Amino acid sequence: MNQRTTTKLAATGAAALAILPATAFAQEVSETQFVLNSFLFLFGGVLVMFMAAGFCMLEAGLVRSKNVADICLKNVALYSLAGVAYYFIGYELMYGVGEGGWIGRLAVWSPSELASDETISLESGYASTSDWFFQMVFVATAASIVSGAVAERVKLTPFLLFVLVLTGIIYPIQGAWSWGGGFLKTLGFSDFAGSTIVHAAGGWAALTGVLILGARTGRYDEEGGIHPMPASNVPLATLGVFILWLGWFGFNGASQLALGSAADVVAVSQIFANTNMAAAGGVLGAFVYCKARFGRVDLSLVLNGALGGLVTITAEPLTPSIGQAILFGSMGGLLVSVATPLLDKFKIDDVVGAIPVHLFAGTFGTLLVPLTNAEASFVTQMIGILCVAAFVVPLSALTWMGLKLTLGIRLPAEEEITGSDLAEIGLVAYPEFQNLTTPTAEPVAPATSSAAALPAE
Amino acid sequence: MNQRTTTKLAATGAAALAILPATAFAQEVSETQFVLNSFLFLFGGVLVMFMAAGFCMLEAGLVRSKNVADICLKNVALYSLAGVAYYFIGYELMYGVGEGGWIGRLAVWSPSELASDETISLESGYASTSDWFFQMVFVATAASIVSGAVAERVKLTPFLLFVLVLTGIIYPIQGAWSWGGGFLKTLGFSDFAGSTIVHAAGGWAALTGVLILGARTGRYDEEGGIHPMPASNVPLATLGVFILWLGWFGFNGASQLALGSAADVVAVSQIFANTNMAAAGGVLGAFVYCKARFGRVDLSLVLNGALGGLVTITAEPLTPSIGQAILFGSMGGLLVSVATPLLDKFKIDDVVGAIPVHLFAGTFGTLLVPLTNAEASFVTQMIGILCVAAFVVPLSALTWMGLKLTLGIRLPAEEEITGSDLAEIGLVAYPEFQNLTTPTAEPVAPATSSAAALPAE
Amino acid sequence: MNQRTTTKLAATGAAALAILPATAFAQEVSETQFVLNSFLFLFGGVLVMFMAAGFCMLEAGLVRSKNVADICLKNVALYSLAGVAYYFIGYELMYGVGEGGWIGRLAVWSPSELASDETISLESGYASTSDWFFQMVFVATAASIVSGAVAERVKLTPFLLFVLVLTGIIYPIQGAWSWGGGFLKTLGFSDFAGSTIVHAAGGWAALTGVLILGARTGRYDEEGGIHPMPASNVPLATLGVFILWLGWFGFNGASQLALGSAADVVAVSQIFANTNMAAAGGVLGAFVYCKARFGRVDLSLVLNGALGGLVTITAEPLTPSIGQAILFGSMGGLLVSVATPLLDKFKIDDVVGAIPVHLFAGTFGTLLVPLTNAEASFVTQMIGILCVAAFVVPLSALTWMGLKLTLGIRLPAEEEITGSDLAEIGLVAYPEFQNLTTPTAEPVAPATSSAAALPAE
Repeated sequence: MNQRTTTKLAATGAAALAILPATAFAQEVSETQFVLNSFLFLFGGVLVMFMAAGFCMLEAGLVRSKNVADICLKNVALYSLAGVAYYFIGYELMYGVGEGGWIGRLAVWSPSELASDETISLESGYASTSDWFFQMVFVATAASIVSGAVAERVKLTPFLLFVLVLTGIIYPIQGAWSWGGGFLKTLGFSDFAGSTIVHAAGGWAALTGVLILGARTGRYDEEGGIHPMPASNVPLATLGVFILWLGWFGFNGASQLALGSAADVVAVSQIFANTNMAAAGGVLGAFVYCKARFGRVDLSLVLNGALGGLVTITAEPLTPSIGQAILFGSMGGLLVSVATPLLDKFKIDDVVGAIPVHLFAGTFGTLLVPLTNAEASFVTQMIGILCVAAFVVPLSALTWMGLKLTLGIRLPAEEEITGSDLAEIGLVAYPEFQNLTTPTAEPVAPATSSAAALPAE
Repeated sequence: MNQRTTTKLAATGAAALAILPATAFAQEVSETQFVLNSFLFLFGGVLVMFMAAGFCMLEAGLVRSKNVADICLKNVALYSLAGVAYYFIGYELMYGVGEGGWIGRLAVWSPSELASDETISLESGYASTSDWFFQMVFVATAASIVSGAVAERVKLTPFLLFVLVLTGIIYPIQGAWSWGGGFLKTLGFSDFAGSTIVHAAGGWAALTGVLILGARTGRYDEEGGIHPMPASNVPLATLGVFILWLGWFGFNGASQLALGSAADVVAVSQIFANTNMAAAGGVLGAFVYCKARFGRVDLSLVLNGALGGLVTITAEPLTPSIGQAILFGSMGGLLVSVATPLLDKFKIDDVVGAIPVHLFAGTFGTLLVPLTNAEASFVTQMIGILCVAAFVVPLSALTWMGLKLTLGIRLPAEEEITGSDLAEIGLVAYPEFQNLTTPTAEPVAPATSSAAALPAE
Repeated sequence: MNQRTTTKLAATGAAALAILPATAFAQEVSETQFVLNSFLFLFGGVLVMFMAAGFCMLEAGLVRSKNVADICLKNVALYSLAGVAYYFIGYELMYGVGEGGWIGRLAVWSPSELASDETISLESGYASTSDWFFQMVFVATAASIVSGAVAERVKLTPFLLFVLVLTGIIYPIQGAWSWGGGFLKTLGFSDFAGSTIVHAAGGWAALTGVLILGARTGRYDEEGGIHPMPASNVPLATLGVFILWLGWFGFNGASQLALGSAADVVAVSQIFANTNMAAAGGVLGAFVYCKARFGRVDLSLVLNGALGGLVTITAEPLTPSIGQAILFGSMGGLLVSVATPLLDKFKIDDVVGAIPVHLFAGTFGTLLVPLTNAEASFVTQMIGILCVAAFVVPLSALTWMGLKLTLGIRLPAEEEITGSDLAEIGLVAYPEFQNLTTPTAEPVAPATSSAAALPAE
């Protein structure tokens, strides 16, 4: 049973009851509600599915051209693998958990009803397959977070094996604790659409990978210098952010899990508005910070600022006012802007900034929940954050280490310099534009650019 | 109160009554209607939000590579700013107007109901936040129109300050006159989804900006020569048009403002079909014109032809037959094709063709309304067009001039030649492909090209 | 009458009756159903419309840069033309057919009801214009399939004339036989969302075109060598596949043709899940095949593998379990991977792999239907496939030959080498990056690449 669903339906059902007298047509009304609730999952799920394209474009735009085809392949493959893993193992590990428990059961998922059934029970309130579809696209998001952080030096097959473990085992087990109805839910941990459960969990997995993999060759030098490795295709990265922004309406909005009553649609409306305005706040937060701090505006920080705002509001997109959503989002955008250069100080080489965006802003957003949602407390939020970290970090580390000791996880240095595209796929992303006469494609940096320090590679 | 909404709901309510007897289940029916009406706003709003990506890709594809990152930043930032300005000032200036009035009130918007309310009144027919979300993405569209026209030489911060005035003050006040229920509505001015209110208004603001800014350096020479400055990324511009086309189903379709009755869904269906076919007509109009006039087809005119068709049908997407929609759209596409070179004759340097598309086709479409909608008259349409122009042009001019005299609105010539990306952001969009050894990236024009005349820069 | 619609509605109506007693509120319930059914067409139709962008990006990414603007123009124009042709001729040829017949009537389509009607009959179950919109975007898909296969050497105008015949005459007539309620429907041929009717039909038209056009200059040499002509923009092609994947939820999901009952939404949910998982299966099938066969993974095969999985499941996305969907999809992906190099063996030069994806996987998927749908038989499926082939191939051949003998269909060799962009449009797609100093832009192939053999051109 999907406690995430059941509980919220009950809640909204109560709200609906407040305005509608119980009538003789209850059965009838509920068929329409059943349709609307299920359709919300489908509509939201489709939007979240498209986030896979958003992550792919964002990452393809941010890496150097010699690694673009490889990152495209990884994104297509990870989305596919995540669904398969979630079907065969993940879903029932996550939602087959008992109340207050910590792990579900080992079983392939199967739907509660089929269209071909003679009668369809309306009791659950939604089509079980619509719920599966929606939960499945979420797990893919968690995996997408990792690919950007470890880009440009991780080997293809070990990366995909990590995705298999993350989406089939790690994500579902920690998800069971809260959305599955397990012990974190019993404690009162509140994470509406997954700032911690999806974003921070993915962020922890990414951070672990980055640390175990090490930085890209030539990224940091002995003297503490940081060598810029500029984004190869800025409009593609921008498109990626717009697609993610679009998909987030599904991510947060359909996490209301019901559309069958006036209270539900009012809630979904608030979530849409807050989601949008938190992203806008994130953009403006990063923009103003850059302007004040550097005198000019770093587009990549602004793009990640939008995502930071989105991740921040994800833990509680329903209860804040629009003004609060703008504020929280701008704080998320600011946090990302401040934290991104800090990671480089510690030589943590996160290619696309996934760790500030998903881990930091996700954790921050989770801690903000009690400010607008009286049912949440700072202490339980903290417990939830720590439990997820305490589980995801060691399991991810174990998985990365196991892969490192067996298959190896890192491209040989010469292949990394030539580019993962040639090494792993044997083709390049832009064969007519890329400069491939030298082993590496050096970005052409103008003297007036802030990116004056070139890769040493 | 959103008169745009209330009025139309009343109209469709009447249509619905014609087929349904008043029953004891009115309350019940209307909760489903409330959900469906609100959901239409959310569905349409999401599509319109994605138009921000469409404008961004269109513009990023059409400018030269040295200005691509800057235009991406402008588009992300303007969309964010527009929402914030509309929340704090714009919405209530627009929809807080009295019947027949000309300006709303100075107030931050707040929703009529919350999901957490004990009871939710169904009387308004939709969730107030869903309406706010939908109106908010419209104002962003108006701002997006401006960015393309003034691209490649306008400074970032003054541009964004203009957006703030446009979306917080100028657009809402003129919008109050019709959609807000003000004096143009009383007069009978009819602009279903905003050919004048959104597109021509944005177009006037763009034209004013272009005139005050002046043409790009090197665009026109003393002898009347026009130097082509070719689009740097044609498939990206094409993608932008497809995304805008997609978003327009939300733009026009959800402007029906209700989905709760058979009459409403029939109306939305007609709007979808007409919107699509007007765009198709615009493509074919531009295609045939180019073929007949130049012997070959200019892709950028065809792309703008699609948009011209869309803008043309926006004033009245409901009442035309599909055949009429194709015809009107093709006339819009033709208009754009004929007008675009004319602007250059007058040395009006509109980088992406936003003025022909949004101002000319928008005005044209507004004048077509009486042909299929008996409730509109040519005279009132003309009055509406002139009132909007008479308000938007001087206020925009004042704002641009004020910015020019204080911050300056134009990049210094040397920064314009180097490119706004390096000047404003300090990075370039395609660092590995762009030729940055010379101060400007000269397009490589083949001898056989129609683009033989090169920028003199 | 749209038999495709009517029949399925009846079926789902029966399912609905099983759970709901006939009540006095039947009229009322059915207005909500009418809205929901119609909205499904609109929602699905919008997603399918966006597939036009997907095809465009896929093809623009896969062709060489000198042909990118031309393929963008073709895609925008074909989508527009398809809608016009379908409105004036196609729809009634397809759905104006009598039961068991083979051709509809020559008439311009007109809607059964208008929003302005005094009363709207709910009997048909949906708004006729919503159905028209949905069917129209399907025909555009069939045309999109052709453009990629014949890219890089077909002339613009004859190509578009072929599209006119395909979408106005060929597609509708064969579609009448099954979806229109004609003789294939009477026989029991089952093709849920068009593996044969859309994809194989488009594929046959493409194959015919490719054979009559001949291979690209320099593609094959006398000694049987095949000269790679690498994709110019890999992330754009990847984006195209993600957009197609997204659109396919509408393509298959809304082919349920109803959303008004619990049984319907359960069905749509199953279709969404199966569609996604078949695509995932296609990715994994192609991935594993490449890894096993070549030692490394060809991204373009993986992308086409996803599409192969999608086309395979399209004939029957409802009845398989998710496990079966993964299996069927992976077989489709495998088929595409094996067949693509085979075509080159026979010197069939399909630029984007449209024939394996749409014709082979479409036919394969149609043959799989009886495995999960007891109402279908292998024999009738075979008959349907052969009837469509026996009709589409000669008519397409006749059309291509007629165009060849009159206007000519192939670019002169020198124009093909210079690129169709300069020849047909007079501009290039990436003027600042493309190397146009030599008549053709040679891809820079690194020594270590599997693409070591260069175009001889």
